[in-house]
Amino acid sequence: MRRRFVAALFCDGASATLPHRITVPSSEEPVVLHPPGCGRAGEAPMRGFKNTLKPLNILPPEAEEQVHRATLKILREHGVIFEDARALDLFRRAGLRVDDTEQRVFFAPEFVEQQIRRAPPRFTLHARNPDNDVVIGGDGLVFAPVSGPPFVADREGGRRDGTLKDQNDLVRLSEVLDVMHHGCPEVAVKDLPVETRHLDILYHQIRLSTKGMIGDAWSTLRARDHIDMMAIVFGNREAILDRPAIVGIINSNSPLRYDSNMAEGLIEYADAGQVNIITPFIMAGATSPVTLAAAVAQQNAECLAAVVLAETVRPGAPVMYGSFLTGLEMRTGAPAFGRPEAALGILSSAQMARRYNLPCRAGGVLTNSKVPDAQAGWEKMMQLWPIVLGGCHYVLHGAGWLDGGLTASFEQMVLDAEMLEMLPRFFAGVPVSDETLALDVIAHVGAGGHFLGEEHTRRHFRSEFYFPNLADTEAYESWVKKGEKDAGARASERWKKLLASYQEPGLDMAVDDHLKDFVARRKREIEATID
Amino acid sequence: MRRRFVAALFCDGASATLPHRITVPSSEEPVVLHPPGCGRAGEAPMRGFKNTLKPLNILPPEAEEQVHRATLKILREHGVIFEDARALDLFRRAGLRVDDTEQRVFFAPEFVEQQIRRAPPRFTLHARNPDNDVVIGGDGLVFAPVSGPPFVADREGGRRDGTLKDQNDLVRLSEVLDVMHHGCPEVAVKDLPVETRHLDILYHQIRLSTKGMIGDAWSTLRARDHIDMMAIVFGNREAILDRPAIVGIINSNSPLRYDSNMAEGLIEYADAGQVNIITPFIMAGATSPVTLAAAVAQQNAECLAAVVLAETVRPGAPVMYGSFLTGLEMRTGAPAFGRPEAALGILSSAQMARRYNLPCRAGGVLTNSKVPDAQAGWEKMMQLWPIVLGGCHYVLHGAGWLDGGLTASFEQMVLDAEMLEMLPRFFAGVPVSDETLALDVIAHVGAGGHFLGEEHTRRHFRSEFYFPNLADTEAYESWVKKGEKDAGARASERWKKLLASYQEPGLDMAVDDHLKDFVARRKREIEATID
Repeated sequence: MRRRFVAALFCDGASATLPHRITVPSSEEPVVLHPPGCGRAGEAPMRGFKNTLKPLNILPPEAEEQVHRATLKILREHGVIFEDARALDLFRRAGLRVDDTEQRVFFAPEFVEQQIRRAPPRFTLHARNPDNDVVIGGDGLVFAPVSGPPFVADREGGRRDGTLKDQNDLVRLSEVLDVMHHGCPEVAVKDLPVETRHLDILYHQIRLSTKGMIGDAWSTLRARDHIDMMAIVFGNREAILDRPAIVGIINSNSPLRYDSNMAEGLIEYADAGQVNIITPFIMAGATSPVTLAAAVAQQNAECLAAVVLAETVRPGAPVMYGSFLTGLEMRTGAPAFGRPEAALGILSSAQMARRYNLPCRAGGVLTNSKVPDAQAGWEKMMQLWPIVLGGCHYVLHGAGWLDGGLTASFEQMVLDAEMLEMLPRFFAGVPVSDETLALDVIAHVGAGGHFLGEEHTRRHFRSEFYFPNLADTEAYESWVKKGEKDAGARASERWKKLLASYQEPGLDMAVDDHLKDFVARRKREIEATID
Repeated sequence: MRRRFVAALFCDGASATLPHRITVPSSEEPVVLHPPGCGRAGEAPMRGFKNTLKPLNILPPEAEEQVHRATLKILREHGVIFEDARALDLFRRAGLRVDDTEQRVFFAPEFVEQQIRRAPPRFTLHARNPDNDVVIGGDGLVFAPVSGPPFVADREGGRRDGTLKDQNDLVRLSEVLDVMHHGCPEVAVKDLPVETRHLDILYHQIRLSTKGMIGDAWSTLRARDHIDMMAIVFGNREAILDRPAIVGIINSNSPLRYDSNMAEGLIEYADAGQVNIITPFIMAGATSPVTLAAAVAQQNAECLAAVVLAETVRPGAPVMYGSFLTGLEMRTGAPAFGRPEAALGILSSAQMARRYNLPCRAGGVLTNSKVPDAQAGWEKMMQLWPIVLGGCHYVLHGAGWLDGGLTASFEQMVLDAEMLEMLPRFFAGVPVSDETLALDVIAHVGAGGHFLGEEHTRRHFRSEFYFPNLADTEAYESWVKKGEKDAGARASERWKKLLASYQEPGLDMAVDDHLKDFVARRKREIEATID
């Protein structure tokens, strides 16, 4: 079977080539998005990509060493503030010098180096459906959706406060996006009380998604609730102690300070064997010195201090070295994403994580743009390439993020997914063999012929080419006829179609009941403390 | 003097950080776009960026060797067709086996290797204003605007046939874009007769721009006219014989064939010491086998055959190894830009060029999108990163290209310029020293403080940060108040402002008269042959 297509084979530069009609071989088999045997982390049937590039070291070896030594100097001489009695006590008992008045911990370099060696360089993050387990570390590359914005947006409704309906729709949409390997989207659900909404949010995430979970690590209360809920899903806390099932994001209060809620969250996650993603929020020029070298050294100090805490709580506790390093847009005072400074920040952060053999979390596929426009497109790609080149392992905010993280966008979810879906083909590289060099085919077709009808073309096109869902390559006239839709308009149609295709995965009834009971009880308990 | 700015310091993930107000140090001095001392090729005061990255070899050494051997085999056993008596005669006289019936040339490997060694690995392209000279090769990276589309477009006027007015406006716009290092934009000027418009186009480019020129290499007639016009600008043909002042684009008629017009153009440019950019148009699956390895080998064969011709015409003739390698969008039959296949194509082409010590031209900052939307943004960045990583030296279609090369867009010109303007800051990397590590500043500010008011911040922010012209980082409310403009809308305002700022550089009156006389005479001569 063959179908006809028209291609505008156009002229490049001054040379004129007349348009050709092209006949493309077709097939009854559906086109596969991911070439078989590529794009997966390791050999295991797990989610996530296998990054085949050698990581790029943006810092020469001596510069990396200087940053490392500066970090140890900051940790030893300046120290890091932990506004938390439990953390200070743990450090003191481990033999570190602690200034209780200032809540400041001074880190001996040998202790830092000893503790960070306890962190696993690679671990598996478990999901309730084991097909959705992901490996963090090595050559794996795992993407998770946007998490945290107060607002949601779509093309028709514009920007608005997030609600539970939006929250759940975003989870459903993310669930059908194969390239969202881990986690569920999350917005600040404004139609639920702030004190207890963490319970509803995670309950619905567990119910609607079979992927691994991102929890709340802000405060003892939220951290314990979320770990307890995952314990219910997997049986009990013992069952997840060495099989992490939830990750918490730990942000320092830069420069060089952790507040009590984050320190407590970290301790709870580490103690339960769950994953802490330590992510200083360094905005060079505001929360760190303006120079990138200092920003990286300070981030490194903040990050290692928290890794040391996690490994002091529980040796071998899984952690990720996170980075959210950006510059400052001096004219508006906003953190600036998708910029060369951010690209350099990602590359140098990943390099420092690699030095310490720690899995690396990159900030995300970020943009300052308010809408899914050209700026969103180029800024996100400007973040994605260094993530890939730096050999980052886990990417939060991998899809859906707009306006510096203030907005979760339905259109942007599918647009970003499209960008990420290109990676497996890139990682498959250029295999060279007699079959792929195809000298016999070149000889057979001969000068001036074409390769469209060749059996060789039919045999290989599915794995050679990436097949997009949203990118337009129509002839102009056909594009006009179909309504002159830009990428945002096509994305608007696509997310609705994908959302409609979502099917609830079902949850074991006993687990569901147990979770519901837990949520109801905890709500009563929390509400009682408010009244 | 200080001004106040507001930043939404927001929360990442589950952690809540309250918004801060941020005071940013300001200055009376204007912000400089390019950090001093970085971004320029070499030490010379020339246009172009200095690419500080080590080129990425996407092919392992043995794969590169296999591609090379396959190339020599194609050249020796299959040969390349040159539908041109002059080319066949040159090859025959150089001792190659030529099949006159088939117009096929068989290339002995030793001859190929000997001839390509004659091509200079690095040369200077001269402009009528020497400040606009560019170095091609080494660690230089030079961008040129879009060239060749039949249509132009802007936000208000939509897509339309190109006219001389549009053509000249695009030249003016490109002239004020500092990041357009070489060349002038060109569209097919439909309101002038096709037989003579090459004369008008180049005349107006020379009049309106002081940058280096891209000429027409399609046919003896156009090639000679354009070289003669540059000879007038620089005095005479002798004056440019060893100081190339114009480049021609040579496209093969893939697979493995050069038509007479292109072969003649190449011979004319080489003979006059001008630059041939050899660019096979390989669309894997259509004009080459579908597998990338074969596409690269075939491109390599076509490219080297033409380089051999140029070096046979005039040993030492400056050439570039060009690539326009793309995949095929199977569903529409269009060449597919901004895809992983294209990224791999750029990287492997640049690697082969490097093997032969030939300067490399990359296809461009390309997209299939019809409008400056998210797709245009991400596809162009998907082309730009491999261009940078591959160590390409010259980028045609660096700005303004839309719709697979069918349209030159005014908005896209300034949007693309914005992307390219990020590169110098990226290339400046992360300098590490006591001054940039700033341990004293970190100690001085202390935990929980901020760095906005520091003298260190004031001293470094101009060189640490890239300052965009179009990227939006406004607070949402302020963005709404200013009309909710997306990047395309802002670009529409910006190109008009830039165009209005254009000032004609002036042209030596004697040169102008000489050029006008030449154009008038040649028009009479050409028109006489039509009648």
